[in-house]
Amino acid sequence: MKNAAIMGYGTIGSGVAEILEENKDAIARAAGEEIRLKYVLDLREFPGSPVEDKLIHDFKVIEQDRDVELVVETMGGLNPAYPFVKACLLAGKHVVTSNKALVAAHGSELLAIAKEKQVNFFFEASVGGGIPIIRTLYECLMGEEIQEITGILNGTTNFILTKMDKEAWAFDKALKEAQRLGYAERNPEADVEGHDTCRKIAILTSMTVGKEVNYEEIYTEGITRITDTDFQYAEKLGMSIKLTGTSRIRTDGMVSAYVLPLMISRDHPLYSVNDVFNGILVKGNMLGTSMYYGSGAGKLPTASAVVADMIHGAKNAGRNVKLGWSAEKQAVAPMGVNAFRYFIRMAGQPEECLAKLMVFGPREVVSIGKLNEFAIISKEMPEADFKEAVSGLEGIRSVIRVEL
Amino acid sequence: MKNAAIMGYGTIGSGVAEILEENKDAIARAAGEEIRLKYVLDLREFPGSPVEDKLIHDFKVIEQDRDVELVVETMGGLNPAYPFVKACLLAGKHVVTSNKALVAAHGSELLAIAKEKQVNFFFEASVGGGIPIIRTLYECLMGEEIQEITGILNGTTNFILTKMDKEAWAFDKALKEAQRLGYAERNPEADVEGHDTCRKIAILTSMTVGKEVNYEEIYTEGITRITDTDFQYAEKLGMSIKLTGTSRIRTDGMVSAYVLPLMISRDHPLYSVNDVFNGILVKGNMLGTSMYYGSGAGKLPTASAVVADMIHGAKNAGRNVKLGWSAEKQAVAPMGVNAFRYFIRMAGQPEECLAKLMVFGPREVVSIGKLNEFAIISKEMPEADFKEAVSGLEGIRSVIRVEL
Repeated sequence: MKNAAIMGYGTIGSGVAEILEENKDAIARAAGEEIRLKYVLDLREFPGSPVEDKLIHDFKVIEQDRDVELVVETMGGLNPAYPFVKACLLAGKHVVTSNKALVAAHGSELLAIAKEKQVNFFFEASVGGGIPIIRTLYECLMGEEIQEITGILNGTTNFILTKMDKEAWAFDKALKEAQRLGYAERNPEADVEGHDTCRKIAILTSMTVGKEVNYEEIYTEGITRITDTDFQYAEKLGMSIKLTGTSRIRTDGMVSAYVLPLMISRDHPLYSVNDVFNGILVKGNMLGTSMYYGSGAGKLPTASAVVADMIHGAKNAGRNVKLGWSAEKQAVAPMGVNAFRYFIRMAGQPEECLAKLMVFGPREVVSIGKLNEFAIISKEMPEADFKEAVSGLEGIRSVIRVEL
Repeated sequence: MKNAAIMGYGTIGSGVAEILEENKDAIARAAGEEIRLKYVLDLREFPGSPVEDKLIHDFKVIEQDRDVELVVETMGGLNPAYPFVKACLLAGKHVVTSNKALVAAHGSELLAIAKEKQVNFFFEASVGGGIPIIRTLYECLMGEEIQEITGILNGTTNFILTKMDKEAWAFDKALKEAQRLGYAERNPEADVEGHDTCRKIAILTSMTVGKEVNYEEIYTEGITRITDTDFQYAEKLGMSIKLTGTSRIRTDGMVSAYVLPLMISRDHPLYSVNDVFNGILVKGNMLGTSMYYGSGAGKLPTASAVVADMIHGAKNAGRNVKLGWSAEKQAVAPMGVNAFRYFIRMAGQPEECLAKLMVFGPREVVSIGKLNEFAIISKEMPEADFKEAVSGLEGIRSVIRVEL
């Protein structure tokens, strides 16, 4: 039997407690022994809850109890998650987290401590909710040279964009609905500005290259400037707009990594990833394209990934499983070198600015019948060249990168 | 360093040799040591090929060479694959296979021998080509109670059905094109009659329940009776037709398992799995629905799954990884108890047989403008009830099960 503790009894933490109870037999079968929840650490009281008798308020109880071998961190944020997780690893306990901010900011250090102490620091639930993408990268696609990962990694923004796409809602209305349903926080910035996706693609990139990627170096653009008008053009073009995070191995030793709204066609495997679902495309040099799809958020799917990590921890007691990345820094290519095609929507009559638009290649003009407005899709251009080309242009209403 | 042997230098076997060379560094990194190809067993000669100097014709060389710890079986069929694999396991070697016929027919015995000898019998490549579905089930979704698996598991038939759907081709034309491109065998029976999918869903079901499922007990219906006319109705209904294998855990201790063409709607996650791609839906009690998508066949994707298993074998030398199933028999529910909705296409005028059709529920009539023909979609009915209801009906041209 392995004793476990959960730090943070919020949505995910309570989900973990629920699954440990509900799927007790399946878990014991998979782990080879029972996993027993001994403590739940939270500042709050939860009278009448199923974990009432396990609730503690002092972290030291967990840190100092040698019987507790598995610790789950579902508090979120960096403080006190970071010092608590570090202390648990130093005390020789396996730690499982769902906290992408923690992994993106302190992953290298925590992985190194886990290795030194011959325990594990697992974080499957930090990316893609219930989609087993981390384990797929290090346990399933072994022997592949991963060339590219592109994912819809944030359920909240995907819900908003799906509403704008399928129901022609405006951004504000879709955001309000997401908040009403509990998908979006009252302060939605982390989701809609792309910060959440940025941390997740940083983690996936670090997994792929085996080195530390500083998430602050990843170009990040959210969805707040996407309008229902943009979606009307997208529909006309047979396309949709998704917030994607991308990581691509380059031949110059750097990686390309960015987060941005991407216009994709109906044949793109991510096109039909809708609502709060996540989808992650992985391209390997032998395997080609594969995709992993599932609930990217939500209490039980995310908690299920945490529990899988706990089982993996129990099965590998006293043994550091090789995964993650070293503290060595991975260079991220400057955004200017990445090439895209661009959807450009602008005021005016196409004939009037034809000469100026030639720099984007000989393009077809797209119109949705709006007065004095049109759009084109450019040829593929490095971002730096594009920026220069548009700098002299007036009347630009929208620019969205395109993958045909 | 681990020495390996490949038995069978056909499409997959030569792909394995290619990847071992091409991704040598990534493989050594993942396995923790180099994997060196020592022998290739084949009856044929391959003068000028990269494995010319490794080619042997006598199985005993592999069996008796104690330096060979990893053996890959990519011969296909049962004889001599079965005795060779068994002998390798008994000699204490890890065996990796891509051979679903072998796994479906002798998996229980081979898994038991591997356990006894503390080696491993891995078969990731036997289902879903490059999609890591086997490992996902036993390494990633640990702790989930898997409730249902539904997959497009055969690339050849999916290619044929995609051509019929998107290009309005007739079955024969699509089959010929599949043969021309090398996707279908000259004798296409194993694919188009569903036998290949049947073995794969048997393996997935055994994985899920941990007991042996006899593939001969799985109801199997192929795609040879699907016509371009059926696809015209499907299009009218906003649906497509896919050959699917399904496995569902029942509350009565049995499993429902069957292979059949299924009409699915545009919102179904398998709808956009086209061409030779495979897609596998997995429903867990906590995770909800997840999907795994990728190249279901083809030399390098399948070989990539074999290589991942070799790495996994190297990492677990001297240690039997818990996976698979026991020799205990799993009861398969008789097909009659499984309930579906049915697409029924028939000759005649709907008014004339309205009374007779009432048994299928009050249904809307679908027409594609063909003279003296129409279709309905029934209410959900157990297969046994449906069979009885249609037995008295004349003029039935097509029956396809439907998932809305």
